[in-house]
Amino acid sequence: MTQEAREETVLAAIEDRREQVNDAIDEELPMAEPERLYEASRYLLEAGGKRLRPTVSMLVGEALLDVEPLSEDYQAFPSLNDGTVDVMAAAVSIEVIQSFTLIHDDIMDDDDLRRGVPAVHREYDTETAILAGDTLYSKAFEIMLRTDAPPERGLDALRMLACTCTHICEGQAYDVDFETRGDVTIEEYLDMVELKTAVLYAAAASVPGIVLGADQDTIDALYEYGRAIGQAFQIQDDVLDLTVPSEELGKQRGSDLVEGKRTVITLHAREQGVDVDGLVDADNPENVTEAEIDDALDTLQDAGSIQFARELAEDLVQEGKDHLSVLPDNDAHDTLDDLADYLIERGY
Amino acid sequence: MTQEAREETVLAAIEDRREQVNDAIDEELPMAEPERLYEASRYLLEAGGKRLRPTVSMLVGEALLDVEPLSEDYQAFPSLNDGTVDVMAAAVSIEVIQSFTLIHDDIMDDDDLRRGVPAVHREYDTETAILAGDTLYSKAFEIMLRTDAPPERGLDALRMLACTCTHICEGQAYDVDFETRGDVTIEEYLDMVELKTAVLYAAAASVPGIVLGADQDTIDALYEYGRAIGQAFQIQDDVLDLTVPSEELGKQRGSDLVEGKRTVITLHAREQGVDVDGLVDADNPENVTEAEIDDALDTLQDAGSIQFARELAEDLVQEGKDHLSVLPDNDAHDTLDDLADYLIERGY
Repeated sequence: MTQEAREETVLAAIEDRREQVNDAIDEELPMAEPERLYEASRYLLEAGGKRLRPTVSMLVGEALLDVEPLSEDYQAFPSLNDGTVDVMAAAVSIEVIQSFTLIHDDIMDDDDLRRGVPAVHREYDTETAILAGDTLYSKAFEIMLRTDAPPERGLDALRMLACTCTHICEGQAYDVDFETRGDVTIEEYLDMVELKTAVLYAAAASVPGIVLGADQDTIDALYEYGRAIGQAFQIQDDVLDLTVPSEELGKQRGSDLVEGKRTVITLHAREQGVDVDGLVDADNPENVTEAEIDDALDTLQDAGSIQFARELAEDLVQEGKDHLSVLPDNDAHDTLDDLADYLIERGY
Repeated sequence: MTQEAREETVLAAIEDRREQVNDAIDEELPMAEPERLYEASRYLLEAGGKRLRPTVSMLVGEALLDVEPLSEDYQAFPSLNDGTVDVMAAAVSIEVIQSFTLIHDDIMDDDDLRRGVPAVHREYDTETAILAGDTLYSKAFEIMLRTDAPPERGLDALRMLACTCTHICEGQAYDVDFETRGDVTIEEYLDMVELKTAVLYAAAASVPGIVLGADQDTIDALYEYGRAIGQAFQIQDDVLDLTVPSEELGKQRGSDLVEGKRTVITLHAREQGVDVDGLVDADNPENVTEAEIDDALDTLQDAGSIQFARELAEDLVQEGKDHLSVLPDNDAHDTLDDLADYLIERGY
């Protein structure tokens, strides 16, 4: 299949599932009192988002059970043994965690925009944003408790969720720490990305395996698929931050450079002797010029750093796809393959 | 028993259990990487605290099982049915949640001091404090997953924890909202306190019942005990904020007044026609004078508001103690009674 056809398949798969995901989010996280708190909590979730992680969860369910795409009710999904499980609750729980981390990260990074709208701490205030994140945090656990999985598996899913959240915090702490460290290695960066970003993909892929009763090897393989494509996803994000116009990106292009974020690109460039800290003069994303970022991009391209990042992401995607060999051959399996490719081929 | 003798019993009960609680905190929340994150996460827990909530959990375990105080290993506590349960893990989980809420509340309220030491966002920075709170949040769930309770009960304990956290967020949102509302009623205030403060006492009292296999009526009664004494505790905190010297309080006396916090005292005074907003001129706790707070206190006393608060707290304590009738008569039961009294008799 061509890249274009693959991308079309993936976008259709996401599109076909998005409405169900959004309905389930509304159902699992309804408006409640106090209104302002719940409005702020739901604000980013309502602002959009591709729902990539829930899509992964739904596809894993279909692939494992070897059922036709969209043929089953995800809220009463046939288990591998007996009874049914609410796979959608697991998918929504992961998306809610994702939203919580975005809200708190934007406060910490003092970012103004997210998904093309003001960050929650800008639209509301920092106090409300902290609290909105905290609310989503516990809601995600409440939602994960509603999968109707047999108790042992339910506990395993909760365990995965809790560990994932701890790892995300650790990853974010490393990310902040790296900004003031000059000696970060690419290996350390990849470990940070695993914690900060990839474990949530790993959870999205493996929790359906857990609640549906897959064996441990399958669960582990699904986890590794999510982990690998999650790392690739972040590296692609790093590339896009430099190469995609601000309007499409929903935030200022080149903000990572301005904020001194370490990325695989700048770490590679530094190894090639590029003066990374001197690439842009601006000290905040508002007063950087497009020309400045273009020049920086040229320098990084000449150093082979963009190419290096792309190849690394490709290797990770291949690694992720290899782990899917535990799944039966079916449409959902193919789409999970395509989705891995899409993560690094996407333009925004 | 005299008030003095009762207080001595309670302080001894707390003292006798504190070292075990602290050891368990160290065990359940060990230092890890990244170091700065875990240092910040453990900072308030290491700064002290009476461990009131873990003490409640331990006493409930002893009372339910009708065992001698301190006669059993809390990490392998005999269940009401079969096997043993780690009651201490449940107790520590609750204390870790308490610590997370303090860290985030201090950021939101911009408070400088806590337990006599700088708040986490002052000792470190706001970013680290947000992240430290987030880390404790998931750690509390990880720890609650280690009670070794039968799976169904383990899930119920997790459910209680997640709902409790959601309620705390809602309560904090109401608390912030009330600061800018002139028409808050005492009933609304008590509902807010139930959400913000009391549910964590309710969890501390009822979760041991859940994991040890008590029947639902007993669990409900334990919950109501914790809820009632938790509300009383907060009302006493409101009284102490006005009446205890800053050095003993570990923060500026009268800070609630200065910050415009609604309390049962100021709400009652307002109903009596007192111009509550005019009680102190200072707009931040640093430049309020002791004389100003003394004058405000006199006015509130003349309006009968301090007395009103004390009586309300006494009623709640009695209500809480009445719920304990589900427990067998034993030493731990008596100490839970005394602890309820102590919460509103304590001087700081």
